[in-house]
Amino acid sequence: MKLAEEGGFNGVIFQKGLAEKYYDGKVPLILKVNGKTSLPKGEPIARQICSVKRAAEIGAKAVGYTIYLGSAHEDLMLEEFGKIQEEAHAHDMAAIAWIYPRGQAIQNDIAPEIIAYAARAGLEAGADAVKIKYTGNVETFKWAVKCAGKTKVFMSGGPKAKTDVEFLRQVRGVLDAGAVGLAVGRNVWQSSDPLKMARYLKRLVIENRSVEDAMKD
Amino acid sequence: MKLAEEGGFNGVIFQKGLAEKYYDGKVPLILKVNGKTSLPKGEPIARQICSVKRAAEIGAKAVGYTIYLGSAHEDLMLEEFGKIQEEAHAHDMAAIAWIYPRGQAIQNDIAPEIIAYAARAGLEAGADAVKIKYTGNVETFKWAVKCAGKTKVFMSGGPKAKTDVEFLRQVRGVLDAGAVGLAVGRNVWQSSDPLKMARYLKRLVIENRSVEDAMKD
Amino acid sequence: MKLAEEGGFNGVIFQKGLAEKYYDGKVPLILKVNGKTSLPKGEPIARQICSVKRAAEIGAKAVGYTIYLGSAHEDLMLEEFGKIQEEAHAHDMAAIAWIYPRGQAIQNDIAPEIIAYAARAGLEAGADAVKIKYTGNVETFKWAVKCAGKTKVFMSGGPKAKTDVEFLRQVRGVLDAGAVGLAVGRNVWQSSDPLKMARYLKRLVIENRSVEDAMKD
Amino acid sequence: MKLAEEGGFNGVIFQKGLAEKYYDGKVPLILKVNGKTSLPKGEPIARQICSVKRAAEIGAKAVGYTIYLGSAHEDLMLEEFGKIQEEAHAHDMAAIAWIYPRGQAIQNDIAPEIIAYAARAGLEAGADAVKIKYTGNVETFKWAVKCAGKTKVFMSGGPKAKTDVEFLRQVRGVLDAGAVGLAVGRNVWQSSDPLKMARYLKRLVIENRSVEDAMKD
Amino acid sequence: MKLAEEGGFNGVIFQKGLAEKYYDGKVPLILKVNGKTSLPKGEPIARQICSVKRAAEIGAKAVGYTIYLGSAHEDLMLEEFGKIQEEAHAHDMAAIAWIYPRGQAIQNDIAPEIIAYAARAGLEAGADAVKIKYTGNVETFKWAVKCAGKTKVFMSGGPKAKTDVEFLRQVRGVLDAGAVGLAVGRNVWQSSDPLKMARYLKRLVIENRSVEDAMKD
Repeated sequence: MKLAEEGGFNGVIFQKGLAEKYYDGKVPLILKVNGKTSLPKGEPIARQICSVKRAAEIGAKAVGYTIYLGSAHEDLMLEEFGKIQEEAHAHDMAAIAWIYPRGQAIQNDIAPEIIAYAARAGLEAGADAVKIKYTGNVETFKWAVKCAGKTKVFMSGGPKAKTDVEFLRQVRGVLDAGAVGLAVGRNVWQSSDPLKMARYLKRLVIENRSVEDAMKD
Repeated sequence: MKLAEEGGFNGVIFQKGLAEKYYDGKVPLILKVNGKTSLPKGEPIARQICSVKRAAEIGAKAVGYTIYLGSAHEDLMLEEFGKIQEEAHAHDMAAIAWIYPRGQAIQNDIAPEIIAYAARAGLEAGADAVKIKYTGNVETFKWAVKCAGKTKVFMSGGPKAKTDVEFLRQVRGVLDAGAVGLAVGRNVWQSSDPLKMARYLKRLVIENRSVEDAMKD
Repeated sequence: MKLAEEGGFNGVIFQKGLAEKYYDGKVPLILKVNGKTSLPKGEPIARQICSVKRAAEIGAKAVGYTIYLGSAHEDLMLEEFGKIQEEAHAHDMAAIAWIYPRGQAIQNDIAPEIIAYAARAGLEAGADAVKIKYTGNVETFKWAVKCAGKTKVFMSGGPKAKTDVEFLRQVRGVLDAGAVGLAVGRNVWQSSDPLKMARYLKRLVIENRSVEDAMKD
Repeated sequence: MKLAEEGGFNGVIFQKGLAEKYYDGKVPLILKVNGKTSLPKGEPIARQICSVKRAAEIGAKAVGYTIYLGSAHEDLMLEEFGKIQEEAHAHDMAAIAWIYPRGQAIQNDIAPEIIAYAARAGLEAGADAVKIKYTGNVETFKWAVKCAGKTKVFMSGGPKAKTDVEFLRQVRGVLDAGAVGLAVGRNVWQSSDPLKMARYLKRLVIENRSVEDAMKD
Repeated sequence: MKLAEEGGFNGVIFQKGLAEKYYDGKVPLILKVNGKTSLPKGEPIARQICSVKRAAEIGAKAVGYTIYLGSAHEDLMLEEFGKIQEEAHAHDMAAIAWIYPRGQAIQNDIAPEIIAYAARAGLEAGADAVKIKYTGNVETFKWAVKCAGKTKVFMSGGPKAKTDVEFLRQVRGVLDAGAVGLAVGRNVWQSSDPLKMARYLKRLVIENRSVEDAMKD
């Protein structure tokens, strides 16, 4: 929580349990309403574990839901997101889809056409925003952002970049491609100075500054 | 949207997300209420991702639902369409079934007897209209139209024809066979001049003109 | 429809779509509330595709439901029929079970002991009537009728008989065995003179005449 | 029905269909609310085919439900019994579990430890009574009865004994082990004199007499 | 029950059936609302067999639910726990998750990182407390307790220790690691003197005494 407030983030993403026990209402809350562990080896599926009503009671501004596109259970997740999106809107909350291509049918989960397809799927499903992985390239990510249309695009934090500056460059590219922000995790928490990193990110995202300019401090 | 209005189409077909973000009410809306991606490799299934109630709120005149006939999950789609059809009628909306034979049990998804069976299945399931693929031949398609009985038949746009005139001839054949219209996609958007193509189609479908006559202009 | 009225049948059997578009109320209607195609190759299952409430609105006197006894999905169909039977009775409609042994576990779907088992299963499940296949022999069919107890037995039309008289003899045998009637399809529609065949059947079933007597005309 | 009244049985066990068509209210009714055929070859499962509400309307004093313990579908049956037990109690009916270990995981379905486990499972699931098979031995069955705690134990009729006296001795052993009764079927119906057999059983169960004493007559 | 009262335990854990037949209200009740047998060989799953409403009627202070983390059916249990947790809180009961990694994907179900993951999963799922196995080492268990955050940690009784003192040392280690208590079973019932063992445990858990001090008596 501390990081989120001091860094001036737009919001925090919590599972129900963390939100119930730690959320203090100081920054907007995105409640992740489905979840799984990384233990099972089969085709991925994460089902709803928090009701939309409960997310509203906790004070969430949006609900988040992960869809493993291409999984043999894709149909169940698309169906469930469909219901959650309608219920979230009825509670005046946004519905954000984490769209991650995964499963045996997926060779490369950050291939440009796959990421663009994920963005488009989020638009069609009615997501207010999608969280997708970076393609590794500004031009191809731009295409994905275009495919998402009026659905906003957040970049998923993804695997840890080798250096802080590498991570910030990646973020700058994503923003230049039209993304509205990013959902970060380990790249901030595991950086050498999480608070400094959070400040840099804020300058990129909110103040729209360059990497070099942002890192002056 | 632009194409739909200028071309004078009878309606547009949108998934929930596109309808919510782009539909302006100027042409009738058919809301597609199930959907899938092309990524999973198993037996095809597309589940409901938009409620009928939500389709009505958005202002749809009809709901569309795809049934992959012959899929190992055919039973789930026939069941779901059954509920959606009743709910749509209760909301004064038509229920349109896209009926596509698909899955390991299907050798040739445009074989005349398969397309005729698809048409008949749509009639039995209570569809107000079915969208089926062209058999490639006017006589066999006529048989399919007959099998659909009082259920109206739309030709699915299908794969892109080699030339515009080839596509228009295909459409004329389908109309002569008794189909009431067609659901187009890439054959219009990807033609050299989409607006001109839309105008030609309108002349065939609405004004019932010949291909040669329609293309004068 | 025409055949049904002129032939003086006790009723017609329609799927929802046909009933909604063609049923005129002149003869009693049995609405078939589940259905499948013959395309999928796995263990057979047909799920509910018409609600009992809708069947009542359409004016059905009874609902029909197929149970593929012995299928790996038998449990789902027995469960669904259980609900439908109770709902049908609450709407003052009869519940008729088509009981067809089918699937990998079934070697011979008209073996006397299998047909008798099917009849008994219909009685236990609470069916007002069962539709079962002819065993090919009056004595063994009598046993099946006895196993059905107070549940009425209809013979399923089954595969087309070689001649009209062969079909009529089969019907006479079934009636002599205690069946109350038969559900016909292709044996009437595909006979050389459907209306004449319907007249003959009426004489056998309603007027209880012999085959020779019935065919005088 | 006749046998039940003349023999002075405590109750009859019927499936819904038999109860609706033959039950006359003269003896207490146990309505069996799930069922299957012996045709499918896979892991056993029997789903609910009669609602608890309907069982109450018919006048049942108790509902019966079979759980195939050890089946790959055990979880679905334990879950369903859990709901049925609560609903039955809400309707002032008892909930009786037939607990039969079955499926590929079960080597010997009457092994003492398996039968004791079945009895215990019935107690934990909240059954008012369990129906379990005889272990073949008074001492081991006593253990099973003890494992059932306050849940009453009925012996399942099981396969036909070679002679009437052998069957009666089995019953006496079961009663001596603490069972409150037995659910009989073919051992009564298929005995040389069903009414006499019923009289003997009554003397064992209700009047607590020895086999030799009971057979004097 | 006797043991629980005399030993001064914080509560007893019962399945529905045991609670309905034996619980006398003298100590707080945790009602276990799912369950399975050890017979089926496939990926583990235990479904809800007692409603939260029923648990509340019986007088439970908390409901317990087992999640087999890593099972191929993990998703169904996480989903079900999600609903139960919300319903329990609505009835002013705590929701306790027994989190046991199990199934083909799990090599070592007490590996420190697995136990820590289980603890974290319980926190994210919204459990008020988790019951997890001992890692066998105070330091690694401390890590698991930390991962559980504000979710309280109980040690699962686990397999029987070789001696009473070995078991008590294990308990002391767990408490030193931050656990609030333990859920015992066979280590108490099967010890040479269950009442004495219960007294020792009370001294460790409630009075926070050392093993040597606790065993003076």
